[in-house]
Amino acid sequence: MTGTLFVIGTGPGNPHQMTPEALAAVSQSTEFYGYGPYLDRLNLRSDQRRQASDNREELDRASAALRAAAAGASVCVVSGGDPGVFAMAAAVCEAIDNGPQEWRAVDLIVLPGITAMLAVAARVGAPLGHDFCAISLSDNLKPWNIIENRLLMVARAGFVIALYNPISKARPWQLGRAFDLLRAELPAATPVIFGRAAGRADECITVQRLADADAATADMATCVIIGSPETKVISRDGKPDLVYTPRSIAEGKR
Amino acid sequence: MTGTLFVIGTGPGNPHQMTPEALAAVSQSTEFYGYGPYLDRLNLRSDQRRQASDNREELDRASAALRAAAAGASVCVVSGGDPGVFAMAAAVCEAIDNGPQEWRAVDLIVLPGITAMLAVAARVGAPLGHDFCAISLSDNLKPWNIIENRLLMVARAGFVIALYNPISKARPWQLGRAFDLLRAELPAATPVIFGRAAGRADECITVQRLADADAATADMATCVIIGSPETKVISRDGKPDLVYTPRSIAEGKR
Repeated sequence: MTGTLFVIGTGPGNPHQMTPEALAAVSQSTEFYGYGPYLDRLNLRSDQRRQASDNREELDRASAALRAAAAGASVCVVSGGDPGVFAMAAAVCEAIDNGPQEWRAVDLIVLPGITAMLAVAARVGAPLGHDFCAISLSDNLKPWNIIENRLLMVARAGFVIALYNPISKARPWQLGRAFDLLRAELPAATPVIFGRAAGRADECITVQRLADADAATADMATCVIIGSPETKVISRDGKPDLVYTPRSIAEGKR
Repeated sequence: MTGTLFVIGTGPGNPHQMTPEALAAVSQSTEFYGYGPYLDRLNLRSDQRRQASDNREELDRASAALRAAAAGASVCVVSGGDPGVFAMAAAVCEAIDNGPQEWRAVDLIVLPGITAMLAVAARVGAPLGHDFCAISLSDNLKPWNIIENRLLMVARAGFVIALYNPISKARPWQLGRAFDLLRAELPAATPVIFGRAAGRADECITVQRLADADAATADMATCVIIGSPETKVISRDGKPDLVYTPRSIAEGKR
């Protein structure tokens, strides 16, 4: 008898940004797999079992969760943000693709969540108001030359750029290098938003100009949003600036 | 005395995908501005007033909402999905940018929601599992040549592509033209996901191959996700195929 595998997202960490359907999946599950700090966001009952693991062990975690679900358990794999954006849903699919036939029979239910770029964008206005892209800056999982090419192509094409996994102890220079590349393509005044813990008590959101953007502002939990040439800043007396990308582009622009 | 302006998203329409903080904003507001079908998703009390308008009147609606908030009301502007993705948050910021000084004093609170591409992606697996972009296919708000250039650049750079506003009565040919362009750049077997009403009772999700993708499958409420050359399909006995984009790209790829 096969079980159920929920793959959920907690959102960025504010419990009021977690959807009711994700909370219902938590309530129905008995085995929980995830990075420890994400599991800590759930209020589990004493009959619910935690299997916390490191944040670089996604495929092992996905396989362990699939084994438990294939054996009949009600299993919940927990991501931060949205499970489909640089998170566990792809790892679970990869494990199914390369795993035993019985894992394909597991009842797999992926439930969406608020991903970091949406939460960060909301706190400053509407920087993702027109065409945008999301890029993981981690070169653990793809060669750096692909990342550079993608950054250049989307900057030249006028996309707003959201960067996930911008920096870590093992990847200290990549974000600075990305800013250098983008400074050659985009206006000096292009807004760069550093968003950490959006919507949480320890939220920290700062906006810099691309010309002066300092990679040291980010840590591994930061989402960085770089405007397009259309992105604008509105100053307000006694309130933080608003950053938004207009919905329209006039004729004659690239 | 200035009031408050919430800008919220309902998610794709399943009430269990609306966040508790968005529901709390609804509860605190007395004046509601939005496209009628989105306002219909809320269970308003008899003391709460609806100001429904057509979905092409975003700027007028934003201005009306700002006038009410500047006069002291508790106002809620309602988008489907996430208010920051091709939706009302940018229209409100545009109105503030071009409006009277007093609109900058309004307490503006944008609250994120589940945007269509995340809800659609979750229903088929993890097609947004690696770098992706979101493009509005509407040439009401930008010239068509910019859209064509963006499609080509991101397809060549290996992004998964989510298309919003793919088709309407006034824009009947654009999605077919986009598929034609992409067929010249991407493998014939690239999965194309048509997602309508994801998570709702009337949900309709279909997956086609790019070679055979039929634009007539979409309507104005459909989000279309086009895979990258990395995107894979997993077949399962008695269950729908899974579509996912692996988290990693091997050395040697573009």
